[in-house]
Order: sequence, then structure tokens, then C-alpha cells
Amino acid sequence: MNSFGRLFRVHIFGESHGESVGINIDGCPAGLPLVLEDFLPDLERRKGGIQKGTTPRKEDDLPIFRSGVFQQRATGAPITILFENNNTRSGDYEKQRAVPRPGHADFVAHQKFGGFEDYRGGGAFSARLTVGLVAAGVIAKKLMSGGVADGGVQIKANILEIGGETDLEKGLQRAIDAKDSIGGIVECRVSGLPVGLGEPFFDSVESLLAHAVFAIPAVRGVEFGRGFAAARMFGSQHNDAIEDMTGHTRTNHAGGVVGGITNGNEIVFRIAIKPTSSTPKEQLTLNWETEQLENFSVKGRHDLCVALRAPVILEAVTAIVLADLFLLEQHIPRIWPEAGQKES
Amino acid sequence: MNSFGRLFRVHIFGESHGESVGINIDGCPAGLPLVLEDFLPDLERRKGGIQKGTTPRKEDDLPIFRSGVFQQRATGAPITILFENNNTRSGDYEKQRAVPRPGHADFVAHQKFGGFEDYRGGGAFSARLTVGLVAAGVIAKKLMSGGVADGGVQIKANILEIGGETDLEKGLQRAIDAKDSIGGIVECRVSGLPVGLGEPFFDSVESLLAHAVFAIPAVRGVEFGRGFAAARMFGSQHNDAIEDMTGHTRTNHAGGVVGGITNGNEIVFRIAIKPTSSTPKEQLTLNWETEQLENFSVKGRHDLCVALRAPVILEAVTAIVLADLFLLEQHIPRIWPEAGQKES
Amino acid sequence: MNSFGRLFRVHIFGESHGESVGINIDGCPAGLPLVLEDFLPDLERRKGGIQKGTTPRKEDDLPIFRSGVFQQRATGAPITILFENNNTRSGDYEKQRAVPRPGHADFVAHQKFGGFEDYRGGGAFSARLTVGLVAAGVIAKKLMSGGVADGGVQIKANILEIGGETDLEKGLQRAIDAKDSIGGIVECRVSGLPVGLGEPFFDSVESLLAHAVFAIPAVRGVEFGRGFAAARMFGSQHNDAIEDMTGHTRTNHAGGVVGGITNGNEIVFRIAIKPTSSTPKEQLTLNWETEQLENFSVKGRHDLCVALRAPVILEAVTAIVLADLFLLEQHIPRIWPEAGQKES
Amino acid sequence: MNSFGRLFRVHIFGESHGESVGINIDGCPAGLPLVLEDFLPDLERRKGGIQKGTTPRKEDDLPIFRSGVFQQRATGAPITILFENNNTRSGDYEKQRAVPRPGHADFVAHQKFGGFEDYRGGGAFSARLTVGLVAAGVIAKKLMSGGVADGGVQIKANILEIGGETDLEKGLQRAIDAKDSIGGIVECRVSGLPVGLGEPFFDSVESLLAHAVFAIPAVRGVEFGRGFAAARMFGSQHNDAIEDMTGHTRTNHAGGVVGGITNGNEIVFRIAIKPTSSTPKEQLTLNWETEQLENFSVKGRHDLCVALRAPVILEAVTAIVLADLFLLEQHIPRIWPEAGQKES
Repeated sequence: MNSFGRLFRVHIFGESHGESVGINIDGCPAGLPLVLEDFLPDLERRKGGIQKGTTPRKEDDLPIFRSGVFQQRATGAPITILFENNNTRSGDYEKQRAVPRPGHADFVAHQKFGGFEDYRGGGAFSARLTVGLVAAGVIAKKLMSGGVADGGVQIKANILEIGGETDLEKGLQRAIDAKDSIGGIVECRVSGLPVGLGEPFFDSVESLLAHAVFAIPAVRGVEFGRGFAAARMFGSQHNDAIEDMTGHTRTNHAGGVVGGITNGNEIVFRIAIKPTSSTPKEQLTLNWETEQLENFSVKGRHDLCVALRAPVILEAVTAIVLADLFLLEQHIPRIWPEAGQKES
Repeated sequence: MNSFGRLFRVHIFGESHGESVGINIDGCPAGLPLVLEDFLPDLERRKGGIQKGTTPRKEDDLPIFRSGVFQQRATGAPITILFENNNTRSGDYEKQRAVPRPGHADFVAHQKFGGFEDYRGGGAFSARLTVGLVAAGVIAKKLMSGGVADGGVQIKANILEIGGETDLEKGLQRAIDAKDSIGGIVECRVSGLPVGLGEPFFDSVESLLAHAVFAIPAVRGVEFGRGFAAARMFGSQHNDAIEDMTGHTRTNHAGGVVGGITNGNEIVFRIAIKPTSSTPKEQLTLNWETEQLENFSVKGRHDLCVALRAPVILEAVTAIVLADLFLLEQHIPRIWPEAGQKES
Repeated sequence: MNSFGRLFRVHIFGESHGESVGINIDGCPAGLPLVLEDFLPDLERRKGGIQKGTTPRKEDDLPIFRSGVFQQRATGAPITILFENNNTRSGDYEKQRAVPRPGHADFVAHQKFGGFEDYRGGGAFSARLTVGLVAAGVIAKKLMSGGVADGGVQIKANILEIGGETDLEKGLQRAIDAKDSIGGIVECRVSGLPVGLGEPFFDSVESLLAHAVFAIPAVRGVEFGRGFAAARMFGSQHNDAIEDMTGHTRTNHAGGVVGGITNGNEIVFRIAIKPTSSTPKEQLTLNWETEQLENFSVKGRHDLCVALRAPVILEAVTAIVLADLFLLEQHIPRIWPEAGQKES
Repeated sequence: MNSFGRLFRVHIFGESHGESVGINIDGCPAGLPLVLEDFLPDLERRKGGIQKGTTPRKEDDLPIFRSGVFQQRATGAPITILFENNNTRSGDYEKQRAVPRPGHADFVAHQKFGGFEDYRGGGAFSARLTVGLVAAGVIAKKLMSGGVADGGVQIKANILEIGGETDLEKGLQRAIDAKDSIGGIVECRVSGLPVGLGEPFFDSVESLLAHAVFAIPAVRGVEFGRGFAAARMFGSQHNDAIEDMTGHTRTNHAGGVVGGITNGNEIVFRIAIKPTSSTPKEQLTLNWETEQLENFSVKGRHDLCVALRAPVILEAVTAIVLADLFLLEQHIPRIWPEAGQKES
């Protein structure tokens, strides 16, 4: 369903053109300071309309706290955050009801929900819902950001390639020139983690991160450490030599996870993001009323390259997974002490 | 923890050199015919010692049913299957207690479990536990194999490359010649699926499959459809045109999943498997008693290339995920009818 | 945490004097017709201020749908329902911050959440949150109300006693005369259920109902069928003789559940509700600033007898449990057909 | 399904007349000392055949550890414990296949599992499976027994009444004289608990304990503190005055739980146990082959009063719930230190 996590648990909801999208976060320790300003930088990073190649749809994306925050701190009760949908143009979608957009979920949603789905702008499948993930990610990052954990955890995602080019400007320009959308690759690195997060088998760190990462729309692959390149290596090349009692390894081909468990080195993983399904190019699709193929061309307002907006979302789901593992391993107290106070 | 699934739910347990490994399967519909012979082919495929490049450790791998099967059918109660560990040589491991094997979980397990872990042969981290996954996979495959679902679901995994070579023999020989271990790539294809399995976001088909796939030891990456190559494509190239009301698409770049939901086409995904951590080559690692680096060389009996044994395990976890989704979408009845009977 | 259910899953949130309380419902089949009017009768039954002995705090209790409902039907995505808190007088509570009200959660909440809890009006512990349960109950009842299930399920709760009196007026008057609050007993009966809901052991129908029932504030006991009286019976008296192939029994001492499973007879169970903790009588409690005992007297607006408002809440949690079991046993389709249409 | 708990999680399995019954325990902290002798006292208390009024079926009930224990300590991996079924006489049951025993699950199991259930001796519904609960309870008790938690937690259950008599011998004799079975009431008390276990609403301590308690066969009611008697009290009578900063209350009508949270006082609750369904008295039931009512008389070997064996089982499920809450609130470390060592 629409939930994820064991102790730090999020529930997402909302539709692209409904009144709001949002997230409910259960398990946030009481006392964590939370003010509006904590959320704005990451929410700003997620926004379209600023960068070349992103959607001109503009939303304020101001988090509205409906529960769980009192006197600028988490209370220990579930936190509900809403984001209003103001800038919707649903008329764009009503007209083309019977024509599923290629690459989008329109067809499968229609089959799965029997035609009762909110079909406007992708409805409950819309990447608009990632705004809630980013908000939950802000809280998760804050939980791991120091004060309690020594030094704190740093999570940083960067775009490695757009359309196969490491010069991102150049990759984007290729898409603009081709009047098409384009994919990209994003890498995430996490430092400051303790040894011992995760479990062998089903709750391996890779399992949990991959689970969360594929919840981001448009992700088509994930690889840890050397990833697919490891399949072409010898064991003696790939193995990382442990050098000291902190678990530090000479190389980091494993990407910080061995046997499903963090090994104290930097976690490194990459995701592949497909080109935006909504491309300005004309395409062929089925009209399910006429049952004929017809040419389809996107109106609406869309990103040319969703990879541009992915880093902050990738950081957010990574933080959500790791905060949960921190709580499981008791690296975060159940009550967050006052600033300046020491945890008892 | 060591559980996976919502309605078809598995719990794995056991250690490499303990008395047994096993699996508990909750949620198998009553009435499913289950006899020993159903399990032997897949268990045989998982075994080492037959193929060049696999471990000479030989185990009978006969499933012992301890609950949930009565008169050769599932009863609807939890099914417990044990596999005895007979062919263990624990002495191999006792001697090198303070020397974590590079690439293995020895170091992280020691840190995580405070030295109380069963360290013999990888203990609870051992790929030996995948024998239980294969057994659960047999049941999951059977549930989807027809009789009830039209035509049945086919799940088939194949090795695509060993050490970068599509001639598998050649790739393996490279490792043998180099006296080293080697990685590989395995692809899984699933046909016969209905439209509509999975959910947007956290319970996307990719999320669930990736979660399960990373539970297989040595997996370092997973990609669906065009995967990482999609990141270098234009949208007009990547989008699959829907051609008819069954959802059949002209191309299958999406690999059978759109918006997290099966779209009626073949599911196609690939995993990267790292070279076996146990390589015959001498390596450097830390001795945690002396706190000095020392040379390490593997004794024991090991696979040169674990990718060789991966296909049947990959099929198994895929089947486990899909059987769960089938039950959730009510494509499998809660009571499996007698052969020749029609489901009411 | 604040979630319940497996396939029909609810998450509650909110605080008594925060901006809103609410509920998120995941797993409601697409297509279920849902209009405001469906909710009003049960929400009205829950309200105080009408009946003698209930709180004069008046809230509109109009459900605000923030997700999951489109064109007056469930979409299959999570349904979020908010209720505004308008009629709050938080000043009442600020003054007595250090004086935990006897019988209330003030003291335990303060210890558990380190003083960061929203303490106004019971905060996240307030019975105000049951308004969300009632809303979810309306949806659950509707799912089982016929159309698909034959004839439909009827859930009806009634007050059996107030203060030990079966004349409820008389029991209430005793409390009014004594200037005190008073407890009561409520019975719930469910007819129209199929044989076979529930599981032996942990997911027994009694386990699940009891779990949900004790989520209602002030409940102190639950008993099924003959309940505590059964402990004083002989087996030959207590056993119900099965009379026909539908499972109908001559007597119904079991209250409709045998071995944890519904047996096709009416489910009958009762709950004990303690007297409202907020009594007009003066009481003794600890002031945690002075660490001295002091006299305490309730201001605020409160129910004399919360049992009066309990029946509709009890029906709601019962419906939530049973709708989940219905979905598990596939008695409710994943897509709710149009009125007049037959389920395929 | 057949699982319970969040961090200390148990899965039960097995059938009365299958090869074995057992339990799998996930989440037991590494390092906990576990030897056979730890289990024998509680397993002995559960046994029949010793006390007047209990079944003469004798089983060794020796726990067989199949995973998760190494060098007499928990490893941190799942613990699997089997109990062999040796003393079975299945022939007793084969003969009466079409005649569901009144009060037993035979009829509902047949309907639910379509006739595929293991019907011998109650199959998966048998109280025989509680032997696994008792084993898990031993581990749970040990986790809370001191060393780490100050002073440790004491859980003690006692029979309050048999057949309405507080002289248990007298109550039992009534049943023997009547050649019938008889019910009873058992009380459980838990001391040494910290303030703050549990959550408001769904994860209230009462919800979790009631859930677990109704997993015990034959339980028909549960009440906390004053329980059903509270429904006849005034608020000023029922409220417990807090007397000091530890939360100690002058009276303990609440039974140690307020607002779903432990308040630092003794937890007190009672369960009602119905008379054993298998009574020596002749009874009426339906023969589902002939579809006629017929007289039925129990052969087999049965308890006259299952309440006699209930205390240790009640303690076990109570311990399972509380150990989970302890882990959630971080009162138990993830790694159990060596004896004589201090937790770091």
C-alpha cells in the first residue's frame, strides 16, 4: 500500500489535481525541533520552473502542519503535512480521457481501478506526491544530523549524467534541440554512518534503499558500489581490504554495504532515470473508445528531464530508510533532548 | 527482520553450519498439491558440485516438511520446511576467527552482533539459506502455474554474461585461468501476468522485486526494461506504444511495468552479481586481535562464480513477490480446488 | 504506532486542540460511492451536546476529503479525511500544566514524550480522535453493506447499562445527583457474516476485535458470547450444538466465534467503559512542580458518561476489523462495480 | 496470519498430530544466554497429566533448537524451536471426520480450508501449539529479568476461580462429580515496569495484551484493573490519585495502564476461560455427511479444565508483548552483554 518503514513510518496520499497532496509521518521522536524554515531549502530544490528543462507549473509548496508539531517541536504523535494544489489545469486532461499517454500510468491505472481513478494529471501516480517525500526526508535528515549521533550523517545526491553526457548543460541542450525529453543518472553518497545498520537477506540495506528508490517515479535501475561493473570484475579486484578497527576499507567497491549491513564506509549508489514520458514529440497510442491507434501529442506543462529534480527526492527516500534503521539500532533516542541538554 | 511478503509471507532462518536451514511460509492457500517431487528440480538447479565453477560442498537438500502439508496438500496453515546441514566442516572457520574474510560479512556481523554471531561459514549470512527461498519459490510458482490463472505464469531466469563474456564458458575459463572468482549478469523474464499488479510508489512492482532481489547475497544492481540504458535515451525512443486493449505494447522498453504496475507485457529485469568474495587469490585483511593487516587466503570450498547458481534463486524470489501480488489482487483463490474441479 | 489493519488499513492523527484531527484510510476498493451524506448520521450519533450527560463542546464534525475521493467515489488511492477543531479553549489547560488530571494520560504522556507532547485537552490521547474512527467505520460498513455481499452485514451497538442500571435514564440520573461521572456497558452485535473469517491464534476474530476495541479510550474490558460467565459454566452447558450446514447453532454462547473463526452465527460481544475521568468532584493529585499533593477540580467541558457516545465508535472499529477480514477472504471485490452492474 | 510483534516477533506453526509444533522468534538480541534448563520449568508447568483435571496425553516437550542459538547464547538471528509430537493417536479422529465436535473449530476449519485442513486433534487450531508460546515466553521473560533493566520485571499469573469457586479444588471436584468440563478465571500481574510503554489508540498496552491473550484457545474475555466492575463506578471512585513522581498511585483501579500507556504501577488483568469443549457428557451435533443431528461423545484424552494449564501460557504471551514494548522503548539493548560486563 502507501506506507513505508517500521519505526519511522511514512504514509503518502493525494492526487496531482486534487485539493492537496501530503504525508503522514509516524514514529518521529518527541522534541525534534521543526520549523517551517527547515523545510524550505529542500522543497525549493525539488521545485520546477527555475531550472531550464523543468516544468513551468509553479506551486508554493509550503508545508501545512496539521498534526504532530506543537511549539515548534515534534510531539511524538503522527505528523501530518499537507501541500495545497493551487496551480492545476485539469481541463487539459479531461479532453483526452480515452487516450492513455505513452509511458504514463494512464492505461494501467484505468485497468487496475476500473475507471474510478482520478485521472487528472496522473492522479495518485503523479510525481507531485514526491513533495511529501521531500518533507519527510527533511525530518529524517534532521534526526540524523548530529547533536545525538556523533558528527552527524551527510546525505548528498548529484546528477552524474544527462542523456549520457557528464556535462549536464550539454546533455540537456541535446534534448532541447531534439524537441524531446531525456533521461539521466543520479548518484547518492552517505557518510557518517555507523557499522551495523541493516540485516542479512530481506532487510538488507540494499533491499530497503532499493525498495524506497523505486518508489520514485521514473527510476529504472539502481546499483550499489561498483554495481553492474562488478559483474565484470575478479574477486581479488572487487574485494575491499579492511584497514582498521573502524572498518575503513582501502577501496570502496562495495559502496559501504557488505552482507546487507553498513560497514562504516561511505554508502554509494546510483539510479537510472528514464526520459520524461511526456515528450513534446508526437507519438502513437491507443484510443480505448475507438480502439484505434492515433497520434498523440502532449499539451500540459512538463519537465524535459526529471533527473534534474531527482537529487533531493533521492536524498529524501535515502534519509527515510536510514532514519528507520537508526531508530531500530537505537542510534536515535525516543525523546530528542533540548538544545544544549545532554541525552540522559 | 527475516520476513517478507504481505499475504504470501516467508520467514527464513538457519545458519550455514548449524543443524539446519529452513523457511516458514504463511498464507499458502489450502488445497495446493505439494509433493516432494515438485521441489527436486529447482533444488537440483541450485546445487553446487555439478557444474564447473561451483562449490564441491554437497548437500542432499531434501525438503523436510514439518508443518502445513497434510495428505500431499497445503492445509492453509503455515508450512515449515527444513533442510539438514550435513556436509559441514566448521573447523575450517574456528581457526581464523579474528581474521574477517574480505568481501564477506564477518566484520560487520561481529560488530553488529557483538561477537555472539554464529561465525561458522558465514552463519546466518550464508547463501546456504537461499535453499529455503528456492523451496518457497516452488510453492509460489505452483500457485501461479495455471489451473486457476489462465494459461499460467512463466518465470525464467538466464545468465547473460560471466565476467563480461556472453559466452559463459569463456567467461568462466577466464576466472579459472586467473585463479580468481568472477561476477556475472542474470536476466529474469516473466510472462502471463495480468495488467494491474502493484501500486504506485512504495509497493510498486519494481520496489517489491528489487527488495526481494537484494536479499540474494552478492547482488549489486537491478534494472528493469532498458534500465541504465534508458538514462541515455530520448522520451520518444523509450516510450512504448500501446497497441491493443490487452495493453500489449509495440516495444517493451519499460520491461512490463509502468507507474509501478504491471502493464500486461513481459516483465524483464536484470541483476548484477559480484564475483564470489572467496577467491583463491591471496588478499590483505585486518586481524582484529593483533590489529595488524595480514595476508589472507581462502581455504574452504567455494563457488568461483555464484552467478552460475543464481538463476533459480532469482526465479524463486520473483515468484514469491508475484504470488503475493496475485493474492492481493485476488487472482488466486483462498482455497485451491481439487484437480478437475472448477473454482466456485 | 497509529495504524491498524492489513488490507483495509487506517492511520489516525491529530490533537484535541490542534488545527484538526483526521484519518487516512488505505485499501478502500475503487468505485465505492462516498458522499458527505453517508457520513453525517454516524458522525451525528458520536457528537456530544445533544444528549443529557454529554459534553457541551460542539464541533461541526464535517468530514473534509483531502484525497482518495473523486466524482463521489473512492478512487482506490488512500482516502484522507480531516475534521477541523474550531471549538477549542486551550487556555483552560495551560494554567494547570503541572497538575496531571487523575485518570487521564497527562502524567504518562509527560513521561513518555519528555514534556514535548501537546498537552492541551489530552492532545493526541483525546477521544476527539474517535471522530476519524467513525468516519472510517462508515466506509467499512458501506463496503459490507450489500450489493456484493449477500444481504449485507449489520453491525449494531447498544448501551446495556449505565452505572449498573439497565434503565439508562436512571443510571445517568444517579451520576447527576452525585455530581459525579459514571461508567457503562455497551454490547455489539453483528449479523450477516460468512463462516470462515479470522485465523487460529494471533489473528483470531477476538484478537483483532479486542485490539481495535481497546483503542477506544475508557474501555476496560471485553467479552465475547457468554464471556466471563462462561468461566462458571460446564462444557455441556456452554457448547453450542450445530444444527445445519450453514453452521447455525441452537444456542449462541460462543458469540459467533469458534477457534478464532466466525461460525456463521451472530457475533455478540460487550465492552466495559469506565466512568469519565473528568468528574465534577474534587480529587487529589500530584503537582509535579511543587511535588506536593493538591486538590484538583475539573473545569473544561466534559461528558458525565462517555458510554453514551460509545456505541457508534464501537460499531466503527468493529466494521474496520471486519472489512479487513472481508477483503482478506475476498468477499469484497478490489473494484466496486457501478450500481446496477454485476460484479464480473 | 500466524505472526505477532514488531521488534520481538514470533511465528507459530505446527499441528497437533503432525510431526512437530514450533515457534520462530525474530528479534531476540544477540548474546542472551539460553540453555535448555531455562525452558524446563515453564514447559513443565504447561504440561498435562500431572495435575488432576488435565489431559493424560504426555509429551516430553523438550525444545529442539534449530537456529539462532550458538554456544548457549542467542546469535541475533531468528531462533527456531521445535517440539516433537510423539504421543499422538490419530486414529481417534479419523473415524469421526464428518462429525464436528461441539465447541471445537472442526466445522469452521472445514469451511474455511475447504476440507484440506489437518483435522487430527484440532490440527493447527490445537492448544498443543501453545507449547511454542511458552518457549517464546521464556525468552521474553529472560530479556526483561534484570541485569539490564533495574531489578527486572516479574510476571505472575494465578487461577482465581474454577467454576465460580475460589477454592480451586472444590470447583474442580464439581466438574468431576458432574462428569463434565468446567471453566475458570486467571489473573496476571506484572511488576517492575517503567512508565511509558505503549501508545494511545491502536498500540495501547491493553490492545496489544488483549490481542495476544485472545490467541490463547478458550479465552472469552479480558479485563484490566477493575474491568467490568468499573462500569458500575463513579469517576471519583475509580480515578487513582498519583502520589509521587514515579507515578505511584494510591489505588490501582486502572490496573497499571492509563491512556494506553503503563503508568508505573502493577499491571493487573484477568481472563475468562470457557469450559473445555471436550466434555465427557454426551452432546448433540451435526453429521455433515448425513446432514442429520446425532449424539456425540468425546473419546480422546482431554483436560477437564484448561484454566489449570493457562497461567504459564498467559504469562508467556504477556511477556512476548512486553518484551516487544521494551525493545521499542529501548529498555533492552540490541546486544546483551556478557555476565559481569556493563552495558556500554
